[in-house]
Formats: sequence, C-alpha cells, structure tokens
Amino acid sequence: MESPIKLLTILGSTGSIGENALRVVEAHRERFSIVGLSAHSNAERLIEQARRFHPRIVNIGDESKLDEVKSALAPESIQVTAGRIGLLELASRDDATLLLNAIVGVPGMEPTIQAVESGIDVALSNKESLVMAGDLIRRLMEEHSAALNPVDSEHSAIWQCLAGEKLEEVRRIILTASGGPFRNMPKSEFSKITVHDALNHPNWDMGNKITIDSATMMNKGFEVIEAHWLFNLPLQRINILVHPQSIIHSLVEFVDGSIKAQLGVPDMKVPIQYALLYPEHASADWKRLDLTSLGELTFEKPDYDKFRCLELAFTALKHGGTLPVVLNVANDTAVYAFLREQIRFPEIPELVSAAMDAHASIQDPALDDILETERWTKEFLQPKLD
Amino acid sequence: MESPIKLLTILGSTGSIGENALRVVEAHRERFSIVGLSAHSNAERLIEQARRFHPRIVNIGDESKLDEVKSALAPESIQVTAGRIGLLELASRDDATLLLNAIVGVPGMEPTIQAVESGIDVALSNKESLVMAGDLIRRLMEEHSAALNPVDSEHSAIWQCLAGEKLEEVRRIILTASGGPFRNMPKSEFSKITVHDALNHPNWDMGNKITIDSATMMNKGFEVIEAHWLFNLPLQRINILVHPQSIIHSLVEFVDGSIKAQLGVPDMKVPIQYALLYPEHASADWKRLDLTSLGELTFEKPDYDKFRCLELAFTALKHGGTLPVVLNVANDTAVYAFLREQIRFPEIPELVSAAMDAHASIQDPALDDILETERWTKEFLQPKLD
Repeated sequence: MESPIKLLTILGSTGSIGENALRVVEAHRERFSIVGLSAHSNAERLIEQARRFHPRIVNIGDESKLDEVKSALAPESIQVTAGRIGLLELASRDDATLLLNAIVGVPGMEPTIQAVESGIDVALSNKESLVMAGDLIRRLMEEHSAALNPVDSEHSAIWQCLAGEKLEEVRRIILTASGGPFRNMPKSEFSKITVHDALNHPNWDMGNKITIDSATMMNKGFEVIEAHWLFNLPLQRINILVHPQSIIHSLVEFVDGSIKAQLGVPDMKVPIQYALLYPEHASADWKRLDLTSLGELTFEKPDYDKFRCLELAFTALKHGGTLPVVLNVANDTAVYAFLREQIRFPEIPELVSAAMDAHASIQDPALDDILETERWTKEFLQPKLD
Repeated sequence: MESPIKLLTILGSTGSIGENALRVVEAHRERFSIVGLSAHSNAERLIEQARRFHPRIVNIGDESKLDEVKSALAPESIQVTAGRIGLLELASRDDATLLLNAIVGVPGMEPTIQAVESGIDVALSNKESLVMAGDLIRRLMEEHSAALNPVDSEHSAIWQCLAGEKLEEVRRIILTASGGPFRNMPKSEFSKITVHDALNHPNWDMGNKITIDSATMMNKGFEVIEAHWLFNLPLQRINILVHPQSIIHSLVEFVDGSIKAQLGVPDMKVPIQYALLYPEHASADWKRLDLTSLGELTFEKPDYDKFRCLELAFTALKHGGTLPVVLNVANDTAVYAFLREQIRFPEIPELVSAAMDAHASIQDPALDDILETERWTKEFLQPKLD
C-alpha cells in the first residue's frame, strides 16, 4: 500500500528541531509536501529553506523583515506573512495534514491550540503547549479529532514502547533523566553555581533555557506533565529514573512486570522522523547505536531534596487548573534572570514556589485564563527582580 | 470484552517450566482450563498436579508407573495414558487450543509437530523442535494455521518488542547472551575446565545440559536458529550481544536506528505467562525489576574464536536441511559425554564439527529424514566415545 503524502507545516523551521525536521523531509522527499514554514527572526535561513522546499506560504515573526523575505521569494510565488497573526493563521490552515510545532517557549502554545482546533494533527516539540494548556488541548483534541505526536526523545520512547499495547496493561511509564551537570554536586554548593557551569550539559546540545531547565531538572518535571497529557496517565504512574548516559530514552513497565525500553544515539532526527511518519519506522542512514562501545549503563533514583523543581512540577500537575501556567511562566522568568546573573541558581525554585503559593488557581481554564495567568505571574515576579 | 478461556495442555508439567506455567495458571484460574498434563517420570508430582488442576487426561512417560498414576487418579475420573504413543496422542488432541511444550531435549520435537499438524497453537519452550525441524514446522504452521508463541526469555523479548511493528521495518534483532562462566577465561585454559566449573552459571538456574550449552554458547547458537524460524528473519539480521547481567533480555533495531529492548528480572513466569495469555500483559505480583539497585549494565561483542559453537550453529542454519539436526544431536551427545567426564570441554565443538563435516545433508527434510539423521549422528559419534 502506498503511504499518503504528508502535507506538512513546520513552525520554527530555522531552529534546531526545525532544521533536523527538514533533514528528515530531505531524506524522504516523496513522502512530504511542505505547506508552510515559519521562523522567528532568521529571515536569511527561512528564505534558503523556502527556495529549497517550495512551501505555499512562509511566516517571518519579525515584521521588520517582511519586505526582505517577500522580495526574495517573489520569483518563487510563495505567499509571505509576518508577525503573530500570520503565524496563528498559518497554524490553522487546513490544507496541512500535520503541523510540526518546533517553536521554543510560551509563544508556541497558541499555535498548537489553533492547529488542534482546526483538526490538524500536531507533531509537538514545543513543551509549553502541554505544560501550560494540557487540559484545554486534551479537551480540544477530543472535540476536533486531532492527534498529538510527541517529538521529545523521552516521550517518543514511551510512545514507541506503547505501540501495539493497551494502556490499561501499563503499570507505569519511566522517564529517564540525565540528572544534569549537578547530579553529583552537594546541595550546599548550589549557590555557587555559575551560568557557565549550568550551561555545560553532559549529553545533549540544546538551547540555553532548556539547558538550565535540565540543570534544575525542571525540564524533567515539565516532561512528567507532558507525559500525563500525552498518554492519559495519572501522576502516580509516571516515574523518573536518573540514567546519566542518556542511551535509554525512556521505559514502560507493564502489569506483568515486563519492561520495554527504547534506546538510541542522542540524535533528534530519529524521534522527529517517527513523529512525522508515524506509525512507520522509515529507513534512514543516520549514526547507529553501538552498544558494545558504550561503556556501562547506570541508573539512580532522582534526588528530590536537591532538585526542588521536580516536586514543584508534581504539585502543579496535582492541583491542575492554571497552576502549571504559573510553574512554567515563573520558571521562564527565573531562568532568564539567572542567565542574566540577576539571581543565584537556588533562587530559581524559590521564585517559582513563591509564585505558585501566591496564585489563586482557576480550574478548567480557557485560553483567556491561561493568558491572564501568564500576565499575573510576570507581574507578580517583576518587583522581586528589579 | 471477555477473553476466551484457554484450553491448555502442558507437556513436561513437572519440570521447571511446567511448574512455573502451573503457577501462572494458578494466578489466573478463571482464564484456563487444563486439558492435559504429561510428565517424563515424576509420577508423584504429576498426581499432585492432576488433583489440583483436574485435567481431562494425563500421560506418564515411564510405563512402569502407569498403574500407580491410574489408581491414584481413579477417584478423579481422569484418563491416564503412559509412554510415547500416549504422549503424541495427547499433543494432537484438538480439544486443547494451546499446547505448552516444556519437554526437555530431542523427545520434545515430535509433540510440537503433532500439535502444529492438528492446528493447535504451541507455546514453545522445547528448543530442539525448531533447531532440528524448524523448516518442517514452519511449513506445517502455514498449512494448518497454527502459531508458535516463544517461551524462552530472549525470544519472548523480541516478540514483545515486535508488538505493533512491521517485520519489514526491522533492521536486525539482537539476542543478548550472558556469555556464560568462561567469558573472561583465556581459550588456552579451556581444556582444564571441569564439569563443576561449567555448571556454575552466573544468572539463571537451569538444568545441567542447558547450563553446559550456555558455557559453550551453543545455547545462543540454538537461539539464533530458533529466532530465524520464529521471526522469519535471515541469519544476517540476527545478531548476538554479550550482556553479562542478563537484565536486557533482547533487542530489536528498526530501519530508522531506533532500538527497542525488553527488560526484566530473570523470572521465567513472565515470558511463560505472556506466551500463555498473548497478546495480553496480565497483572501479576511477581518480583519487579528495580533498575536503581542494579549496578551497571554492560555489553560486549561475542568472542567467536573462543566460542566455536556459535559458528557451527550459523553454518548449520546457512546450509539448512538436516545439518541443524546433526548440530543438535552431536552437541547433545558431546555434552552428556562431557558431563560423564568422557571428553574435555574443548572437545564438545570438535565432535559437533566432525559430525557436521561427515554428514550428507538432506534438503527440505520430512520427519523421517530428521529421525534418520538423529540415528546417523549418534552412530557416527559412538566409536569416538567408547
């Protein structure tokens, strides 16, 4: 049977996930038609990508670059829009069958909601969508029959291990965590951590914000929240396992005690491709895992006392409503303050905790409640950072 | 949906696999009705099992014990037969929907063939069936629409990893091997290995014959042959990986580089239950794997120079026909000769190799060809052991 062509839009196409996604498309040209591409501000790269992949439409976030992109792409007859409204329009175009949302940060949330409301399946790399609006997105997915395909290596691992299996036969899922650069540092030394120390991630090369989230383990807390919404499992059935080598990307334990794991080299092209061509494992010539050259694989319990962000994330998920929005936005604010050397490393969870304590959560939030909570959290933290 | 009751016959019910299978049945009484039980010679235990599980029929291999079993089970109105013919009749009874073949050694081959010819699905623990008659059994399975459910932990792992996946998307399967007790011993010292040394297996408590097969790694060679017939994969797509801790039971690599693995404690009840209740992971309270208490997991390439039995098994599979029969029977003969201290450890592969070299293989063998080759191999080796 011929597989249908995927009509694909990529939001955030000039970022690391977007670039890798286009490498996947390149490797399977006959399987994809590109509907749209969007970039935050890298006009030059967006133009190159558009010339190569011939989308119907591109969106550049930075409105001052509209003319540059427009004139460059005029000979290609590609429609060009700029700014936020154009981005949200692009996200809801139903001539796409699949949207890869690779936007980094809070601005990625609304495009996910737009796409799901338009009944478009979303390959989801943007973490904030489910962390901040998981409840809402879950409801919209059911209403509009849209699916979410996880892109994150951990969630992709769980998803792959669940292929052909029944959710009610799952005892728990186990998200692995590298433990970050401070796994073996005593808590008493955390206040001396510099930005340079924290940006030194052992296994993956990621952006600065997510690298700090990995160092505080907030990233893993976010992944627990995402896993909850992706796989419809309660918090008690989602565990974290520290696995410093990051070779096992995550595991699923079934009710009979059997455990399945997904392993691989740390190459995002593998989970991206799986999310784009699901349920197919398509042939690819990327670097392969050689288990015999690995040294050893080890496992540890996470240290919840040292990494307070984990508990904060669990609390946010347990209470639900708009509390996860506060978790996410307060963490964002605190991490950028740390990167600007305004606060010390241990103050990140302190600020998040203070905001969560002060917040009056709204249950079953609509989009407006989420956006209002985002504003509230920023305003609440502002005086503490001046 | 209610799952249908499995009408189950267990051959070799008083052995280790048989006893564990009855523990599985005990844990899920409502899911099974026992049609038949058979034991080689342990009449006492067979009687106990029959009183507990009320099969319609039992078979005792040792004909001298027929009267003992008959009189013990007369009040239970259970039919009792004895000897080989009764065993083969039991294997082909089509009031069973599933036959667990847990007979150890060559005598287990024909019951598998009988069951498959009768269209009965077989949960297969007996290795010799596929090693000696894989080609024939495969043909009969298609003809009679019977399935084989692997019981071995390695093959169960592969089978579980293949759930929901397509065989054409599998790049290779990777059978893990503990490497046995002589993994780190130089080949030059192999001639000094005593029976006592060889029976000291690091991870699993098994019978003597299979423990020696594990020490020579012939066991892993047999598993490669079994995997070939179970999963319909060519030899080049079946790899062996030494993993001394035996926690990862085997792995599957897909064409996109993604690898799935199945892990667990070394408890045969897990794969037995999966084979009996497939495709279900049924709830069970057995010992669970705690990855954080494991220490480390390591992986090595197998040493084909040291463990010559691996190459012999590959050769037998490559050439096919009746050569795998010679491999198996010659190995049987050699291992028992080693256990009786008639030959030294390095002579095991030497005898197998000599028999394989001398044999004129018959392609597409029928059962008679297999049985004739069995006789030929024994006769060929006899003079070398006197």
